[in-house]
Amino acid sequence: MALIAAYATPAGPRYGLLVDGVVYEWGGHPLTDQPGAPGQALGTLDELSLLPPLMPGKLVCVGRNYAAHAAEHQAAVPDEPMLFLKPPSAVIAHRAPIGLPANVGRVDHEAELAVIIGRRARHVRREDALDYVLGYTCANDVSARDYQKKDGQWGRAKGFDTFCPLGPVIATDLDPARLAVRAVLNGELRQNGNTADMVFDVPFLIAFISAIMTLEPGDVILTGTPEGVSPIAPGDVVAIEVEGIGALRNPVVAQG
Amino acid sequence: MALIAAYATPAGPRYGLLVDGVVYEWGGHPLTDQPGAPGQALGTLDELSLLPPLMPGKLVCVGRNYAAHAAEHQAAVPDEPMLFLKPPSAVIAHRAPIGLPANVGRVDHEAELAVIIGRRARHVRREDALDYVLGYTCANDVSARDYQKKDGQWGRAKGFDTFCPLGPVIATDLDPARLAVRAVLNGELRQNGNTADMVFDVPFLIAFISAIMTLEPGDVILTGTPEGVSPIAPGDVVAIEVEGIGALRNPVVAQG
Repeated sequence: MALIAAYATPAGPRYGLLVDGVVYEWGGHPLTDQPGAPGQALGTLDELSLLPPLMPGKLVCVGRNYAAHAAEHQAAVPDEPMLFLKPPSAVIAHRAPIGLPANVGRVDHEAELAVIIGRRARHVRREDALDYVLGYTCANDVSARDYQKKDGQWGRAKGFDTFCPLGPVIATDLDPARLAVRAVLNGELRQNGNTADMVFDVPFLIAFISAIMTLEPGDVILTGTPEGVSPIAPGDVVAIEVEGIGALRNPVVAQG
Repeated sequence: MALIAAYATPAGPRYGLLVDGVVYEWGGHPLTDQPGAPGQALGTLDELSLLPPLMPGKLVCVGRNYAAHAAEHQAAVPDEPMLFLKPPSAVIAHRAPIGLPANVGRVDHEAELAVIIGRRARHVRREDALDYVLGYTCANDVSARDYQKKDGQWGRAKGFDTFCPLGPVIATDLDPARLAVRAVLNGELRQNGNTADMVFDVPFLIAFISAIMTLEPGDVILTGTPEGVSPIAPGDVVAIEVEGIGALRNPVVAQG
C-alpha cells in the first residue's frame, strides 16, 4: 500500500510518496512504475504545490449509486448503472479553489470514491476487475442543481471548470468494498456514507463500464455519492474524506 | 482553405493534404503548423489507412440544436444549448466499422458538423469565437435510442466504442453558417439539413461552452443533428456528408 502525491516543480510535475504525513521524493510515475523507496523529504501535503493525482483522459461518473441519495432527489434507484461524463477540464487539485460562476444558483458538494484505472480495460469480468485498478482517490462531483434540473443532460451542471476536485493522493491496494465516504463543510459533517452501501460495487462498475467503453490508463470512475449533499457558497471550505486515502480540501470562491 | 487527412504509417500517424481527391505528404501537424506545399502523392482517402483527424481531449455535444429534429423526438427546443459529452474512446476514423453491441436495441445515425478547436478558449466572445477554430469535420453521433430513454443520462447510449466516427478530413477556413449536413444510408438520403437552421450557431456555441469549460486545442464540439435520423443495422453503410468537407463513410457490423 502506497500513497502517491503529484506536485508541481519548476521542471514540471513530479510524483512523491506520502509516509506518515510527509511527502518524499520518488523518481517514478504511477502509471508505469511500482512505488519504490522514499527519497528526500519534501514537506507535508499542504506545504507542497499539489497537482491532481492524474489528468484523466475521461471521467466516467455513476449517478444514483447510493439508495439514500437517490431518495433525497426523489429519484428511483436504477436497475443498471446510470452513466454520465465530466470533462477533464473540470479537474483541480487539493486546495485549489472551486469557482462558482455568477448566477449559477444552488451548487452542491458530492463526496465520492474515485477509481483510477491502471491498464486498458475492455470487456473485463467482474472477478478480474480490480486487477485493472491503479488506485483510489477522493473526488468532489460539484453539481449546479438548478442547471441540472433545467438542462436535463448534466454536461453544463457538472462540467464547469473547477467542478471536479481530485486528490489529495492515490492510494494503491485499497479494498474498495467498505470505506467511509464523508463530506465535511466548514468543519461540519454533512455526508457520512460507506461504499458498502453502493447499489453497484466497484468491480461491477468496472465490468459494466468496460463492456461499453474502453477504459484507458489514467481514466477515472466516480462511483456516486451517498446522502447528505448540501449547498456550498463563497467562503466555505469543503473536505471530501475517504477512509484510507485522506482529505481533499477545497475553498469555495466566486468566479472572477 | 486546406483539407487535412490523418493516416497511419509504420512510423506512426502522419498528416497529409487532400487536393483534388489525392492525399499528398505534408510534414506538419494541424495544431502547430500552417498547411504548406503538398509533397509526394500518396493515394486517395480510401487507399490510405485513415485515422480520425485528431484524438480529442473532450467531445462536447449539443442536443436539440435543430428545431425539426427536436420535434421528431417530441422534445422542446431549449432556450440555451443542452450539453452532454461523448468519451474520446468512442472515436473512430473514416471506413472503420461501427460495432453494434448485442441486445442494444435501436441505434440511429446522427449527421453533425464537428468543430475542432485550435487554441485554448475560455470566456470567448461570440464575435471572436471563430478565431479559436482550427477547422471542421463530419461527425456521426451514433445513439442507442432505447438506452437513451431508459437511462435518462446519455453516457451509455452515446458512449459505446465506435459510436463517434469523425472525418474524413479537417477543412480549414470554412464558413460554418450555411453548410448542407446529410446522412446517406445505403445510398438513400435520410438526413438533409443545413447549419443555417441551427437553433444556436457555431460562434454562439463556442462562446456559451467556453464560458462553462475551458476548450483545449484538439477538443471537438458536435453541433447537433438535423431531422431524419433513422436506425442502422449490421450490413449497412452510413455516410455523413457536410458541404465543403466530404463524406465520412462507415460500415455497420455486429460487435464480436
